[in-house]
Formats: sequence, structure tokens, C-alpha cells
Amino acid sequence: MSFKLKPLTQHLLLAGFISLSPLAAQAANNDADARIEKLEQQVNLLLKKLDEQNAQLNQQQQEIKTTKAATKDAVIAKTNGRSLKFESADGDFVAQVGGRLQADAAFYDGDIPSGDGTDFRRIFLDLRGQVYKDWAYRFQYDFARPNGSTSTRGIRDAYIKYTGLDAGNITVGQFKTPFGLEHLTSSLHSTFLERGLNHVFTPDRRIGIGFDTKGDNWTFAVGGFGGPAEENEKNDSTSTDEGWNLIGRVTATPFKSDNGLLHIGLAARQNWAGDTDSSIRLRARPEVGVDGARLIDTGTDKIGNKIRNIDEQRSYGVELAGVYGPLSLQAEYITTEIERDQGQDLDFDGWYAYASYFLTGESRTYKNGIFDRIKVKKAVGKGGYGAWEVAARYSTADLTDGDIIGGELDNATFGVNWYATNNVRFAANYIKVLDIDRPGNALDGKDGDIFAARAQIDF
Amino acid sequence: MSFKLKPLTQHLLLAGFISLSPLAAQAANNDADARIEKLEQQVNLLLKKLDEQNAQLNQQQQEIKTTKAATKDAVIAKTNGRSLKFESADGDFVAQVGGRLQADAAFYDGDIPSGDGTDFRRIFLDLRGQVYKDWAYRFQYDFARPNGSTSTRGIRDAYIKYTGLDAGNITVGQFKTPFGLEHLTSSLHSTFLERGLNHVFTPDRRIGIGFDTKGDNWTFAVGGFGGPAEENEKNDSTSTDEGWNLIGRVTATPFKSDNGLLHIGLAARQNWAGDTDSSIRLRARPEVGVDGARLIDTGTDKIGNKIRNIDEQRSYGVELAGVYGPLSLQAEYITTEIERDQGQDLDFDGWYAYASYFLTGESRTYKNGIFDRIKVKKAVGKGGYGAWEVAARYSTADLTDGDIIGGELDNATFGVNWYATNNVRFAANYIKVLDIDRPGNALDGKDGDIFAARAQIDF
Amino acid sequence: MSFKLKPLTQHLLLAGFISLSPLAAQAANNDADARIEKLEQQVNLLLKKLDEQNAQLNQQQQEIKTTKAATKDAVIAKTNGRSLKFESADGDFVAQVGGRLQADAAFYDGDIPSGDGTDFRRIFLDLRGQVYKDWAYRFQYDFARPNGSTSTRGIRDAYIKYTGLDAGNITVGQFKTPFGLEHLTSSLHSTFLERGLNHVFTPDRRIGIGFDTKGDNWTFAVGGFGGPAEENEKNDSTSTDEGWNLIGRVTATPFKSDNGLLHIGLAARQNWAGDTDSSIRLRARPEVGVDGARLIDTGTDKIGNKIRNIDEQRSYGVELAGVYGPLSLQAEYITTEIERDQGQDLDFDGWYAYASYFLTGESRTYKNGIFDRIKVKKAVGKGGYGAWEVAARYSTADLTDGDIIGGELDNATFGVNWYATNNVRFAANYIKVLDIDRPGNALDGKDGDIFAARAQIDF
Repeated sequence: MSFKLKPLTQHLLLAGFISLSPLAAQAANNDADARIEKLEQQVNLLLKKLDEQNAQLNQQQQEIKTTKAATKDAVIAKTNGRSLKFESADGDFVAQVGGRLQADAAFYDGDIPSGDGTDFRRIFLDLRGQVYKDWAYRFQYDFARPNGSTSTRGIRDAYIKYTGLDAGNITVGQFKTPFGLEHLTSSLHSTFLERGLNHVFTPDRRIGIGFDTKGDNWTFAVGGFGGPAEENEKNDSTSTDEGWNLIGRVTATPFKSDNGLLHIGLAARQNWAGDTDSSIRLRARPEVGVDGARLIDTGTDKIGNKIRNIDEQRSYGVELAGVYGPLSLQAEYITTEIERDQGQDLDFDGWYAYASYFLTGESRTYKNGIFDRIKVKKAVGKGGYGAWEVAARYSTADLTDGDIIGGELDNATFGVNWYATNNVRFAANYIKVLDIDRPGNALDGKDGDIFAARAQIDF
Repeated sequence: MSFKLKPLTQHLLLAGFISLSPLAAQAANNDADARIEKLEQQVNLLLKKLDEQNAQLNQQQQEIKTTKAATKDAVIAKTNGRSLKFESADGDFVAQVGGRLQADAAFYDGDIPSGDGTDFRRIFLDLRGQVYKDWAYRFQYDFARPNGSTSTRGIRDAYIKYTGLDAGNITVGQFKTPFGLEHLTSSLHSTFLERGLNHVFTPDRRIGIGFDTKGDNWTFAVGGFGGPAEENEKNDSTSTDEGWNLIGRVTATPFKSDNGLLHIGLAARQNWAGDTDSSIRLRARPEVGVDGARLIDTGTDKIGNKIRNIDEQRSYGVELAGVYGPLSLQAEYITTEIERDQGQDLDFDGWYAYASYFLTGESRTYKNGIFDRIKVKKAVGKGGYGAWEVAARYSTADLTDGDIIGGELDNATFGVNWYATNNVRFAANYIKVLDIDRPGNALDGKDGDIFAARAQIDF
Repeated sequence: MSFKLKPLTQHLLLAGFISLSPLAAQAANNDADARIEKLEQQVNLLLKKLDEQNAQLNQQQQEIKTTKAATKDAVIAKTNGRSLKFESADGDFVAQVGGRLQADAAFYDGDIPSGDGTDFRRIFLDLRGQVYKDWAYRFQYDFARPNGSTSTRGIRDAYIKYTGLDAGNITVGQFKTPFGLEHLTSSLHSTFLERGLNHVFTPDRRIGIGFDTKGDNWTFAVGGFGGPAEENEKNDSTSTDEGWNLIGRVTATPFKSDNGLLHIGLAARQNWAGDTDSSIRLRARPEVGVDGARLIDTGTDKIGNKIRNIDEQRSYGVELAGVYGPLSLQAEYITTEIERDQGQDLDFDGWYAYASYFLTGESRTYKNGIFDRIKVKKAVGKGGYGAWEVAARYSTADLTDGDIIGGELDNATFGVNWYATNNVRFAANYIKVLDIDRPGNALDGKDGDIFAARAQIDF
């Protein structure tokens, strides 16, 4: 059809027709027959054109139909510029394939018995989605190997979540136990390379069942848990009960505005040991993960001071954080109390406090009781220089009580974060190990300096 | 163009024009000139409108073209509501990213030397697809760690399959050897948490080359295999030949209707040991995988009764299953015969029989000689309460013969499965360990009770 | 609207209308009134039709809009027939999910202390992409376990690459150090199952920071590196500095035409050992990876000849390769020089040379200083028989110098590659172990024959 192939010619033809005919001609006193004849010609042309247009319309309708048929059952792939997400048209089905990568280098100085080097801190594969509208799932695996081990850090999240209730969500599987602000905030968005020293008292991820709910300015989560997947590997000869935990957390934001917020949080954990010979080992690295050496450690049986005969364990955490524009303050205190079948009860505790400031005007984002991804104002690759943040933290943990001399450690950390884009971050930390108070151990009274850097991307 | 931006105004204008003009006016005796003049005006308007429509048509055509160009070489992402699949328009290319997650909790009672706890039974990543029409592949990895091990269960499927022959398919790599109905039926669709005790005699997945074919009511598969990938890890000092296997299976459905079917299957395995000092260890957990303790075990060298000096091994399996609406019956017997270079020949065997019934009217689905995914009538999240199934099984295995006292174990299992959706299942099993007959071992004469539960999703 | 539902009827109506009216009638001398009346009817019909068409146009416009809205932020999934790629419309965002699978079987004969068997050589998951235009990333993991180990081969690539500079790319993380033509050419495209024996001197993948750039007929890459991720696992008791490396490579193609090319390459590595007690172990399998046994080995401490007290290590590589149509020649020499704090300096070296020829007329492809994927002329499944290549190589490495008697090994290898499609390859190698010169070791003076085969797919 020439009409379709040469639209420009068509336009010119029609335009020409119009210019030959109408209003001027009307003014003149023409013969009616001639005018009628002309009208008849025009109407014939119009009928023909209309027919042609109609054919074209029908053809287009067909093309639209074909396109629609080709995408039947289709799922749309979307991106927010950093990750890949698939969604069905009705929104009932969602799938995401992602991951994260954190590569570290560290240089140790002073008395710290650690070797300079490089390592991966975390390499996650992250599969998550939603099926039949109300059923969400997530599987997150860490391929990085912890120092001194030939095994990967392994299963992080692996859970099914039912979101079909108005009251809240029910989660079954392994996920982060609801305890601790820094613990629950993703490592992607942590202000420093490592969490504060009191992280040693956090129950971390475990297999269990949980319930969580929230309001406009509060959140609540509680769950019953066994142990984490990777610690469940029991040997034939040492089959003992795993023990159970009841863990809960409540947070509130009594003040929230466009420019800032105030967060308070409380968490508690009750642990019932599985067997009478249950034991626990608490130990901490100096807030850098490249080398495996721990500066404080309640020890193993061989050293003679592993904590044995655990009956129950109780932990409490208090969180306080505030954001005012580019400035942020945060502090957390955790204490844990261990009851033993033999020997006296033990009390350990630790805390940190820090301040961070965005030189480029960004602000820490907060969502559902934890901190979230920084929104970079001008990303590198989009005409900007990224976001720049400086921060300082004091952090301490005390693992000495009664007959257990695990030691006390005090650290000061200074950090710079460069967020090149929303999901590419380079971070440098200088850690001053202020003091190790661990009588009887070679590290007692020692101090040191650590410089550590990280390159991070998530997708 | 106002025409495009204000279609409603356009409609009103045209409609007004029509009402001002035609049929009524025609009845009156008007001056011809006036009528002609009016016609001329109308025709002019028509010409103008036609021109405008034409422009719009061309613009739409352009938009359709652009959309088509943007999806050139495009692969369509589709979902069946639970998993993600990518297909090229010609169907030659297919890719799928999926996985499965099974989280267990178990409570042991009585004489069983196992600890209560939680664990992941399986966490699979599943990548499969098809390239150049006739070449399929699959990689399936299990991230869960078996009890008492720091390694993941590791590589499950990893194969290339050529589907371009009329006669059947050729598969190279690691895949399930064709032996056993319960073994070949996916763990996703198994009626109980664990397969019956005679699963200990199944050759499982191995690296090799196989051929499979089928007709309307029969299937046949055969293959030559070495050992499984994760058992091939030879140490420098103990490099021995791996040994080879010839394994085959034939199934038939002599009766099949809309409402039911009858399945019979036969399988055989011939194994040639690699070296004169080849050995084998057979052992079984009590149909729950959370704790690693085995109740029957042919032992290790240290205990003194590991089966050594294997020359050849032959196994035979017989399968029988029937489905009649919501009711299903299934039974399987496996026997294995071990020839040794030194010492007498050994014969071990085991079997199970079970019945299952869907309270909600579903029926077990069957495909190509194995059982397949349950089709839930009314899924949770789609206005229903899912599918409910109850089942009972008796299962036994005997690992005692000649000088090998591995023990005999008898179990009764009662199960409830709740299929919330086609791919979300919650299962609970009560296992009664009826009797352990293992003279000379501490477990001899003992019994016990186990309660185990699982949350499962696949995508 | 009947207009829309029955377009054919419409066409007939309009066509009929036209045939009833125009040009013939004009010739006759009609009454003007009748003609005007008819025109009026026609114009009325035209107005009505135009109105209907307008409605249809608007409806179509709406459908196009809806389709566009549904694909807002959409990423297009594409395939080249073998792998899956997602791209945003602006090209700033790219994501790929892929992998590779290599399944091997090997039969050893003669004096070689290795067991026949099957194994996976490589099973990779490969996630890569690009975010915010200038930031690329890649994570590649090997799920296969090396012989004699319970751990996977683990992290291969894991890096972030900034591509926003005109001068070249900056890469941070773990990636292949720029050293060696066979090393840098992907194992997918290697001519033989395993790289030549001098691969033992290659620094392989390491964590570090690198810069690479290129011109029309040259490439240059340099980087500073620590150790590879999986070797960084330090134990608490043995925390030593990791040591650092400076590694660089330059290549040129002085001759390049449609039919062939000449490649020359030079590489150098300077290593500074981390501590005074740094040690190194060099060892090589006989160019087959199914069994773990090494034929030459500088040994472990237990044997007494591990290379200890390393101070510095320097390596140099020279590459030469030519392609002329289906024929290809390639050779590489690497030498390494080890300075010790105690004991004399050591010099080791090795080289290989090979020829390959495509019987089916294909040619090795070359890109940016390395060899790339073969483009099969007629793939199986697309009406062809794939590509067939034959090849022969001589390969040698000498690990004996001074007090270190690691041994010298000479191999001749003959190979056949069948590329069924661009990404499905079956390969068979016959390796003649010509001579083991390792005084004092049981293998001294021994030789042997190995037949090995591989099935490979990547996606």
C-alpha cells in the first residue's frame, strides 16, 4: 500500500488538495454543477482514504495484539540502576537475583599478632522473591571463608515468610534474630568496616520461627530459635541437644521529621542450653576481619578457661540513635548474663558510641527500626563525585568475670566512606587498639594500630 | 495537535456538526447553493480531520516500530507463578534460575543417641537451560552441610543432555542413576521427610553417561557411571581406581486412567570395584536428617567391621505403586549382593510400603516413570486453604550378614503434609523406631520416638 | 462498536458504497438535487466513520501507552543463543547470569601412581554486570573440589572495575594477574584439557588492584597484588604477612590480517615475601586433573625439601603465537628465580610449544592479547556437524635446582576437540608422560600413558 510506505507524499497530496479547493473558491460565483462535481470527487477521495486508513488501523490493531500475545505470562525485568528484579503483571510473582562483594586489605602495626594481607570479607549470592502473592522467600549465601577455616561462611538468610496477615509477618527458616541496631543494619550500610566490639554478644542469625509487625513510629519482632545452620553440624559421638532461644526487640521513633529522627530500641534474649555439658566461647577480633587473630577470648578447653556447664543465658540490649541532616549519632549497650550448673554466674558487657557526618550533604536513611541505603546525591558516572562521610567511634567489650579471664578491649576507630554510587563504596578505617587488659595472657597491656580498606559493590 | 490532546472535545465537535446538519435539513426545501456550500465546508473539515488522523496513524506506527526494535533478540521472561523462565522467540534458547529450601526441626525421645535441634536439609541453587535447540544442561548445587561435616553436600546435578535424537536422550555428567522410584522422585515431592530405609542401597547420583527413552506407558534408562563427584576426592597417598557401574531401570504403567494408574518398575546395578582393596560403608539415619547419628552401620576400620576387599556388587530393585484418586499406595524392595576377594559373599536388603490420602481431593501426579508435583486445588493466597495429605509407612533395612553385623532397623512413620501452594509445603512426621537388632552394639534392642517438621519452598 | 468487531463487513460496506456512486454517474446528466442529496448522505456517513475511526485511534493510543507504562524501568533480556543478558534501554545497566561445567574422565596406565575415575574439573557460577554506566563487576565461583580436598576450588573472579577513564580500566578485587598467554586465555577456549606444565610458575588469580589499557595492536596491564582469597586463611597461631606482588604484561600483534595474526607477549613478576619464614611449594600434575597425584613436587616440610625462608621471587614469561587460517602455533617460556634468606638462590623454568589445526576450516579467534571463543561454522542442532580440531603439544617443567630436588617432567600431548556448538565442546587428550627425572624419588625414571576426556558447556 503506497499510503503506508510514503506518508510524506500522502501529506503533500492531501495538503495540495486542500489548497486547490475551499474557502477562496466559495467566494466566487461558480456554477453549481462544477461545485457538485468537485465535491463528488473530494468525497470519493475521502471514501478511498478512509478505507485505506481503516485497513491500516486494523493492521496496527493486529500488531498490538501480536505483541500482547508474545508477552502472555510474561514477567517484566526491571532495574533501579543497581539490581535486577522480575515482576509479573499482577504483582503476585517477584524474583530477584543479586549479591554483594566486599574485598579488604589490612596493615597491622604495634603489638597485634596479625599479618598484613588481603581477603574477602563477604561475597553473597542473594536470591529472593515472592510467589502466590503472600509467600516470600530469601536465600543468601556467603562464599567468603573466615580466617583459619577451609569452609565458606555459608548460609546467611534462608527463609520463607508469610505476608498474608494484616497483623504482621511470620518467618520460618534462618534469619537475623531481632537483637541489636548495628547487627540488624546490613553490612552494606554499616558506617564502619566492622560492627562494634559488643557485637560479640549478639545472637546473630539462627534457624527458627519469628513474627514481626510495625506501626508508623514503632516496630516489634519476636521469635523462637535454635542454633545457626553452620553450627548445627553435630558429630556422631557428640550428639547433644541444640538449646533454644526466645529473642525479641522493640523500637520507636519518638521524633521524626524531614530533616532528622530519634531512634530508641530495646532487645532481650533468653537462652536455654540444650544439655548439661553445653559450653560457649566468646571472642573478638580488633574490628578488622582480614586476619583471624582474636585479641580477647574466653578460650577453648585446651587453654583451660572455656565457659562450660551453661544452664541459661540472658542478654539485654539498649539502642539510641539520632539523625539531624548530615550528622548522625549512635550508641548501643549490650550485657549478657550466664548461669552455670557448676561455678558462679558470669556477667559480660560492651558498648560503642559514634558520630558520622556527610561532607556532601546526604543523610542516613532509616526504615522500620534499622538504617538503610544512603541515597547519593551525585553519583560518579552521572556527573558527580559521590558522597563522602567521615566518622569516629569508641568501642569496648569486657570478657572477664569470675574465673573466666577473656580480657577487656578498648578501640577507637576513625573512618572515611566514599559512596561512588548508591551501590559502590570504598571505605578506609584507622583503628587504634587503645588497651588490652587480659592478665596472664601475652597480649595483656598491649596496644596497636591498624589501617584497613574495603572496596564494596552490591547488585 | 489539539486533535490528539483533546479527543473528547473532538468527539463533541464532530457530534455537534452531525446534529446541526443532515437528515432533518434534507427534508426541507433548501436552496441548492446553501446545501452545496455546507457540503463544501463539511468536506473541507473532513479533509482536515483525515489529514490529522493520518498523522496520528503514522506516529503510532512509529511507536510500534520502536517498541519492536527495542525487543530485538529479546528473550521473554515467564513465570508459572512459582519460578522464573526465559525463552527466546524461536524456542531454541531457554534458561531458568531456581532453587529449593528445606528447613527442619527435630525432637528425639527414647534410646536414640541424637540431639534435638534445627538444620537445613537441602538448599539448592538450580540453573538449567537449553541452547542451540538440542543441547540442554543443568547445574544443581546443595549448600546445606551434612551433619558432622564442614563441607556442603555439594554438587547434585551437573550434566549436558543431547535431545536431538528421535530414539531418546543422551546425558553426560553427574545425574541421578536410574535406580529406585523413591530415589528418582524429587525430594520436593516425596511423601515423607526422608526416603525409606532401603534408600541406603541406592547408587544415588554419579558421574557418567546415560541414555533414556520412553513410550506412552513405559520408560527405559541405562547408563555407565563412575563415582559421585564429592567422593572422587582422592588423596595423593591413596590413589585407587574409582570402579565402574552399569545401572538400568525399566518402568511400565499397565493401567492408566483420568482417575488413577498402576506403576511397576525394575532396576538393576552391576558394580566392578576399582581396586583389590576397595571398601564400602553402608549406614542409615532413622529417617530424619537433623542429627547425624546412624542407628545401623557396617562400620569403619577402627570398629573393625568395615566391608573390605570388594570385588563386585550387584543390586536389584522392584517397585510397585498405584494411585486411585486421592489415595496412593507405594512399595519398593531393594537387595544388594557383595562379592569379596577375601571372605564370604554378603547379602543385604530392605523395603518399605506406604499409603497416602489427600483429604482435600488432590491426586498424586505421575510423569515418565516417577511421581511429580502436586497440583493444589485452592492455594493459600488465592482464596483457599491448600492441600492436606496424610500418610503412613513401614520401612526396614538389614545390614547384617556373615561377619558384618551392621544391624537391622524397623521404623513406622506417620506424616501430615500441608501444601499451602504448589511450591510451599509444611510437613510433620512422627517416626516410631520399632526395633534395632544390632548384637554387640550399645543400640541393640533399643527403640525411640522422633518428631520432625519441615518448611519447604522451591522456585 | 460493530466497526471494530467486524472490519471485513466495514470494508465491504465502504467498497459497495464507492461502487454505487462516483465516476460513471458523473458522466450522466443528473438532477443536481439528487446529486447533492447523495453527497449529503455520503458526507454524513464519512463524518460518522471518521468519528468511529477517531475513537479507535484513541483506544489504540491508550493501549500503546499502557504497554509502555508496563515496561517503564524495564530491562530487556537478550541472548546470543548461549547465554542470558539483561540490559537497560540507556545501556547504563547490564546484568548476566551464567556458568560453565567441565566433567572429566581419565584412565592412567604405566608407572603413574593415579587411579582411573571421573571428576568435575570446573563448575562455575558467573554473575557479572555493570551499574551506573562506568562500574562493572564480576563474581565467578568454582563449585568443583580439587582432588584430596573437602573444600571447593572457590572464589575465582570477584572484582569491581571502573571503566569511566579514557586512559584505561581500574580493577579492584580478585582477578587473573597479567601473566601468561595460556593462563589468561579462558579454560573454555584452551586447546588442551590442561595448560602446559610451566603453568606451575604462573601467579594465577590474586586480590589486588590493577590497571589495563590497549591500542589497536597492543595491550598493557599492570597490578599490585597480595595472595589469592583461598590461600589467605590464616590460623591464629601462624599469622604472617601475606607478601606483595607487582605483576605486568605487554603484548603486541605486529602482524594482523583477515586470515591470520602474529602475537608476542612479555610478562614479569616481582614478589616480596611477607615474613622471614615465608615458604613456597611448587608441584604439577601430569596435565590431567582427575587424580590429585603430582609427578613433580618441591615437597612439604615433612619430606624435608619444602622451599623455605623466601625473601623475593622474580618470574619472567615470553609468549609467541601465530594463526594462519585453520592452523595455529603457540609457545611460551616461563622462568622463576627465588632468593632465600638462607641457602642459595634457586632457578626453575618450563616451556611448551604446540600446533593446532581445524579440519572444518574454523580459525582461532584473538582479542585484546588473548585467545577467545571459536566461532563454529555449522553447529549441531543447526544442520551441521560442529567444528573439529586436532592438536599436539610438547611441554616440560624443571623443579630441580640446588638443594631442591622437585624433579623434571616431560610430556607429549595429542588432542581432538569437537565443538558441537559455540558453547558445547567434547575433548579427548592422550598424554604420553615421556620422562620423570627426580633422583631419590620412587617416580624417578618412570613414564606412562593417560587417556582423558571432557564434556564442557558454558552459558
